[in-house]
Amino acid sequence: MNVLIVSAHPEPRSLTNALRDTAAAQLSADGHTVRVTDLYAINWKSAADRADFPTLAPAQRLRVPQASGEAFATGTLTDDVVQEQEGLLWADALILAFPLWWFSMPAILKGWIDRVYAYGFAYGVGEHSDTRWGDRYGEGRLAGKRAMLIVNAGGWASHYGPRGINGPIDDLLFPIQHGVLFYPGYEVLPPFVTYRADRMDEMGFEATAQALRERMRGLFAEPPIPFRRQNGGDYEIPSMELRPEAAPEHITGFGAHLVPS
Amino acid sequence: MNVLIVSAHPEPRSLTNALRDTAAAQLSADGHTVRVTDLYAINWKSAADRADFPTLAPAQRLRVPQASGEAFATGTLTDDVVQEQEGLLWADALILAFPLWWFSMPAILKGWIDRVYAYGFAYGVGEHSDTRWGDRYGEGRLAGKRAMLIVNAGGWASHYGPRGINGPIDDLLFPIQHGVLFYPGYEVLPPFVTYRADRMDEMGFEATAQALRERMRGLFAEPPIPFRRQNGGDYEIPSMELRPEAAPEHITGFGAHLVPS
Repeated sequence: MNVLIVSAHPEPRSLTNALRDTAAAQLSADGHTVRVTDLYAINWKSAADRADFPTLAPAQRLRVPQASGEAFATGTLTDDVVQEQEGLLWADALILAFPLWWFSMPAILKGWIDRVYAYGFAYGVGEHSDTRWGDRYGEGRLAGKRAMLIVNAGGWASHYGPRGINGPIDDLLFPIQHGVLFYPGYEVLPPFVTYRADRMDEMGFEATAQALRERMRGLFAEPPIPFRRQNGGDYEIPSMELRPEAAPEHITGFGAHLVPS
Repeated sequence: MNVLIVSAHPEPRSLTNALRDTAAAQLSADGHTVRVTDLYAINWKSAADRADFPTLAPAQRLRVPQASGEAFATGTLTDDVVQEQEGLLWADALILAFPLWWFSMPAILKGWIDRVYAYGFAYGVGEHSDTRWGDRYGEGRLAGKRAMLIVNAGGWASHYGPRGINGPIDDLLFPIQHGVLFYPGYEVLPPFVTYRADRMDEMGFEATAQALRERMRGLFAEPPIPFRRQNGGDYEIPSMELRPEAAPEHITGFGAHLVPS
């Protein structure tokens, strides 16, 4: 299978990049084909702006979804963006490897999402009717593929636990796992999270690397997070709220969007 | 009072920038002093990297917290970062105005956080002991100041409701409001969120602008979101988990970190 790994750390010797390389090596050893996009190494342009849409008339107001949709439809997106979109279509699995900075991804990776996820490519896909609200959340251009996060956090695991002060890690990652990955169709595997990443010694690294190798062996077998599919009957259309039959009315929040086990 | 507004939209005629200007005009009319950082206009550098720490030896491994802390302590952060830090110290209130892209802030604004929030400035502040775990979550360098988000979302309000498919807006914004703003000490006001922002006509804009003017009039009076203070006794140290006395053990998730009303 084909795997694209996108990494976002400025230091070649960082834990993020070491784990990225560990993952790539295991996947290659298992017969997969791996491509890496190292966003810092290629000096990825982070900010979505007018320059992303070369055919937009100078006097025209930039509306990002419209400009993005038009550029995607007419094949006029910039080469860097097109290359990444091709990588996403080529890959059977996508892995994002990054340090958790301020409870989210580094700006350079957010800029990869903001720019590569064009209208018509990752959103604004599919028809809207009484029974469907576009191809998203379980359907979409990247459906049938898998995705997974490799995340390094500086804080302690308990700080990210169910009652930890930072908020539960699964909730902090929900906007990425559900909003960025499940949205255009990916099946999302549980994340691989390392805590106290700044304090890791060699022994800690070897144990972490070994655990990651195991996860890589299961990349195409492990069951994904059971997010509810948008057009599977659980949501009212067009309000896109959970139906009472899908989940009792007192159930709210991110966790409500998983199929109960 | 002094107010810093940081905005992050590439189009001068965008709704984001129009609301930013509406907010600034009302604040000025009420006698406050307003400064604006328009991140696109100043071509803000988004990616935190080696260039941010000019005195780091070329052969030395870049560890961002350490390099950032050293540069902050020795006054060797880059001028653009120092200027924004001075703006944060100058301002009695901070407003971040941005379009919601992929359920978070645009990369350029994330890069402002990643780079301006240096170690020793916004984190790594204060002492750790049996009774305190640094000055954060309600304490810190920016304590005594207020902060608020102005957010424009493309989707419908119901999609961001308690049972909406995107997840509740308050939960989507928690990593920003709690993790980015409350963390270094800000009192955080409820966000000003506009939905279906792309479809807004002139009448819709005037109603929205009027509602925002009201919010600006209350900027220094409105009660903030009642996030629990880290060192106020609600959390175990050092696990930083909610004590059973603070919240019954079945209470988990982002909502657990608000003082019950």
